[in-house]
Amino acid sequence: MLVQQFRIPEIIFGRGSIKQVGFCAQRVGAEKIFLITDRGILQAGWIDVVLPCLKKEGIAYEIWHNLTPNPKDYEVEEATRIYLESNCDAIVAVGGGSPIDVAKAVAIMATHQGSIHDYEGVDKISNPLPPMIMVPSTAGSGADITQFAVIVDSLRQVKMIMMSKSLVPDISITDPLVLTTKDPQLTANSGMDALAHAIEAYVSVAANFLTDSYALTAIRLISAYLGKSVASKTNLEAKDAMAKASLLGAIAASNALIGAVHAMAHQVGGKFDLPHGMANAILLPHVMEYNYPACIERFAEIAEAMGEPPGNKNLRQRAKVAIESVRILAREVGIDENFSKAGYSFSEENNLVLSTNASKDSCLITNPRDAGTNDIYEIFRRAF
Amino acid sequence: MLVQQFRIPEIIFGRGSIKQVGFCAQRVGAEKIFLITDRGILQAGWIDVVLPCLKKEGIAYEIWHNLTPNPKDYEVEEATRIYLESNCDAIVAVGGGSPIDVAKAVAIMATHQGSIHDYEGVDKISNPLPPMIMVPSTAGSGADITQFAVIVDSLRQVKMIMMSKSLVPDISITDPLVLTTKDPQLTANSGMDALAHAIEAYVSVAANFLTDSYALTAIRLISAYLGKSVASKTNLEAKDAMAKASLLGAIAASNALIGAVHAMAHQVGGKFDLPHGMANAILLPHVMEYNYPACIERFAEIAEAMGEPPGNKNLRQRAKVAIESVRILAREVGIDENFSKAGYSFSEENNLVLSTNASKDSCLITNPRDAGTNDIYEIFRRAF
Repeated sequence: MLVQQFRIPEIIFGRGSIKQVGFCAQRVGAEKIFLITDRGILQAGWIDVVLPCLKKEGIAYEIWHNLTPNPKDYEVEEATRIYLESNCDAIVAVGGGSPIDVAKAVAIMATHQGSIHDYEGVDKISNPLPPMIMVPSTAGSGADITQFAVIVDSLRQVKMIMMSKSLVPDISITDPLVLTTKDPQLTANSGMDALAHAIEAYVSVAANFLTDSYALTAIRLISAYLGKSVASKTNLEAKDAMAKASLLGAIAASNALIGAVHAMAHQVGGKFDLPHGMANAILLPHVMEYNYPACIERFAEIAEAMGEPPGNKNLRQRAKVAIESVRILAREVGIDENFSKAGYSFSEENNLVLSTNASKDSCLITNPRDAGTNDIYEIFRRAF
Repeated sequence: MLVQQFRIPEIIFGRGSIKQVGFCAQRVGAEKIFLITDRGILQAGWIDVVLPCLKKEGIAYEIWHNLTPNPKDYEVEEATRIYLESNCDAIVAVGGGSPIDVAKAVAIMATHQGSIHDYEGVDKISNPLPPMIMVPSTAGSGADITQFAVIVDSLRQVKMIMMSKSLVPDISITDPLVLTTKDPQLTANSGMDALAHAIEAYVSVAANFLTDSYALTAIRLISAYLGKSVASKTNLEAKDAMAKASLLGAIAASNALIGAVHAMAHQVGGKFDLPHGMANAILLPHVMEYNYPACIERFAEIAEAMGEPPGNKNLRQRAKVAIESVRILAREVGIDENFSKAGYSFSEENNLVLSTNASKDSCLITNPRDAGTNDIYEIFRRAF
């Protein structure tokens, strides 16, 4: 019996929609929310927009923002302690993938025994979680939509993946105006992360009728608008398009699951603390080269979504165009073509550890081409 | 501020997935479920498949099936009384649109004061509803997905529409095998209902980036597979495709909302108790003729989804092809071209009442062309 499952949050989308946080918190029955954010969001003034909306609904709050990019296990411990001490009953995150991932991890630890390390892997969550409302500030991570949470095990220097339908938040509020306060490099990295979600979901062995059209639409939007969004903080048409693309790519990725790009990016991210979107962007064309024999038809469709006219080339040529189009887009938005150029040099010994760990990552299960440790080693070698 | 909202149930899809009812009931925390179904489903043996799955999870149940097509207010009263007397804490419906609509109405009445008539209209539901799990037995009504419930006011002989995001069920379980026990006429009516959902959603003034691709995919699947599904009870490829189309069309319709076809079908359904899918099927091309000036580009895209090659005709000609394609498909699956041929003759006096009531139906708000009572009268006249 092949059964497909599809689960997404309630989605609220539109310019100015961040002001609905209070109303949404009231709807999920919150009395005091734990508000996780980061310094950038605080400085940009978005929390000053949120707080009056909470007060209007009579909702108390505790703000916490003591986290780093690629958030760590000890940060989750601290946040959970404060969540419990302050008697919160719901969690709101306003920020990029990091605050949202911490929010999910706090939701687990507030309702389960042990440490966050015990919940690494697939379907380890058994108790109901507190209500979660997510307001993403980047167009890319998709954590506001997905069933994934990623936290760094600081001792092992690896990213732990928690995967469970219970981690799908209750409500995702996407306000494209929030994207106007992000710098070009973060916009580029996040947008390439969204592209990796959409492409990996579209070629996933678990792709299905509910994820395919969203994945292709995301690819089309990113190809058309990522350059514009990186070029200008105030191009609202581009911000709208990238916000939509992030949502669509994340819906596809959470429900079709993803593949080797993410399995490998988790390792370099855990080891070298480099931006997740950048890791995905560098790895994506290399993994596409590896996956090519398994994905010729789907790559040809991706090429069309990225602007290749349908009639000009044969199927295999069009499939190759998809890989080249991803390389060109990455270059256009300022992503380095390999890790060395980006300032991260890896030894052969590093690669052995990274490849071994990547081969055990949950994301690898749905990659369209079986990849053993040796295959991954070779892909990493080319990406270095 | 234009804010889009998108909410759907968790979706479980696949042959044999009806057996997940017990596990899902356990997941939503049910101890005793109220199981609403109809005689056809009981006779076809599907409840015999469901009960062992409930027993396996230790879930008690109360079965109720005393309803008619186009379910009535007094049936909701009886069902609610039994739900409350039997101390159920969750609702499962296995059947077509009728049992599912009753399930939603029972959910309202079990948690709110007054009678079901008090909840007609938009956003009248204030209290949390009991968990709802829906297993549709037809590929068409979409009630397992949507935020709509439709119940006949038996005194006024009109269909009351309840519309609220709270009416979106928790879980929808679509098992294409269940479709194999439905007769050709019900299959045709249901399939045309799904087509009406998809077309009305695609041209709705509230259509958006999350609904458009699903609406078009539904139209494509229905155009290709409805004839095959009507022709054979055992064509599983066709059952799969129609089950997918029903889901996709309903997701689009619930979130982009619908239009004049449904606003008008509700009136003839309430007055003459005729099958809802048939009413939609007869009205659809007539409403498309009326909406044409407002929908030329989108109708042209619908024509392509129904098989018209893109290059052959100009935009307006292709838009007209969409209307003709709907007429042809309806004829192919045995739908009469007007109500008289189907055995329902309406007087001018009937039409006055029907048009007046249709002009107040909540579904009319998102129709792409403003339609007053006189416009609706004229459309009804042509459809009679």
